[in-house]
Amino acid sequence: MNADRAEAARAPRRAVVLLSGGLDSATVAAWAIHEGWLTTALSIDYGQRHRVELDSARAVADHLGIRDHVVLRVDLAPFGSSALLDPSIPVPHDRPAAAMASGIPVTYVPARNTVFLSLALALAESRGATAVAVGVNAIDYSGYPDCRPEFIDAFRRVAALGTKAGVEGRPIDILAPLVDLSKAEIVALGTRLGLDLGLTTSCYDPAPDGRPCGRCDSCRLRAEGFAAARVVDRRAAGG
Amino acid sequence: MNADRAEAARAPRRAVVLLSGGLDSATVAAWAIHEGWLTTALSIDYGQRHRVELDSARAVADHLGIRDHVVLRVDLAPFGSSALLDPSIPVPHDRPAAAMASGIPVTYVPARNTVFLSLALALAESRGATAVAVGVNAIDYSGYPDCRPEFIDAFRRVAALGTKAGVEGRPIDILAPLVDLSKAEIVALGTRLGLDLGLTTSCYDPAPDGRPCGRCDSCRLRAEGFAAARVVDRRAAGG
Repeated sequence: MNADRAEAARAPRRAVVLLSGGLDSATVAAWAIHEGWLTTALSIDYGQRHRVELDSARAVADHLGIRDHVVLRVDLAPFGSSALLDPSIPVPHDRPAAAMASGIPVTYVPARNTVFLSLALALAESRGATAVAVGVNAIDYSGYPDCRPEFIDAFRRVAALGTKAGVEGRPIDILAPLVDLSKAEIVALGTRLGLDLGLTTSCYDPAPDGRPCGRCDSCRLRAEGFAAARVVDRRAAGG
Repeated sequence: MNADRAEAARAPRRAVVLLSGGLDSATVAAWAIHEGWLTTALSIDYGQRHRVELDSARAVADHLGIRDHVVLRVDLAPFGSSALLDPSIPVPHDRPAAAMASGIPVTYVPARNTVFLSLALALAESRGATAVAVGVNAIDYSGYPDCRPEFIDAFRRVAALGTKAGVEGRPIDILAPLVDLSKAEIVALGTRLGLDLGLTTSCYDPAPDGRPCGRCDSCRLRAEGFAAARVVDRRAAGG
């Protein structure tokens, strides 16, 4: 190994973390820092009805000491057809567990994770980062097709083939460290890493002041995760 | 086949065409219409220095009678590191043919086609379209990794795995009808389809009035294509 290579091997590597402001992405950001990655955070302002999550993303980035935080506006609202984009489609409340465990919910945003990973890939390549990290997980809630490991594998191949970095033999990896974790395990991991989970927001349908509804799928999965991990959620509805 | 299915089989299918306003994408749009697709055009305003191409995209959509034309703003300029995004990086002029044929040029925009295909995929899914069509070709100019057939194949898999449509057995296909055509063959195809190629813009470095420079790689490949196809280019520099 020559001197240049030795230097490169010692240099801290950079990762771009997709930081929505939710529990999962914040845990991934804490994990990336713990693993020694120089971390760039990317948050997407896509016209989501729960825009309050962007405030959470900023608070989490501050809390973790991430100085390179890019908030990118991409207006997906004209694409409609999701309860997260179209205020005329109600966010379901109090769905039975069986309904939550099967089918694709109306909160599905068309190709959202493909769009988000693509933007993270572009940012990673322009920053010279060698990885993109994303908080997808498919254990407690298998409704979203773009949260499954086989989707991440397919996107990893796109990243290798579709970038200059990949062609030059330095493909940008796609890291999904939570993919096999339950919500309770994610709460436990975030807590163990010293992350203030009370800064994160999960609710799809918050009140105008940002208070979570406590009744959407996302609030309920969060509550079950905290309960199973025996951690108090400062951000819970009524909390 | 029952009545509903027969109806569905007769109903025109919809495709989303990525329409930059250049020669290739305009030819794809004309091709899609010729092939019987109901066509939605998607143009991306990404902070490109040759924004004049968006005017060409509008003119081409009008000319072809495409009523559903979405122009989406995604500001990639902060991602920098490309001559097409950063005005401080000059667009190369008068490069030798050997240089044009090898290596990745400074006009490469990180992961651009991955980002564009992702946005087209999202729009396709929300419009109920069954295909995305894109004008990539890798014959005359192999410098861009995200114009190669193997990249398109990889993205097709992402589209199948990462969407509700794919999971439900109606994957959105990725069509790249020009992938094996030379620039001359593209000019010939567009002309045969009745497309007014004079409406299109290829230049990376146009004058403030939109006039092409005639000296960037893209102008020179265009000129060679028209010459080889024996078609006059109304849009040529000095034309």
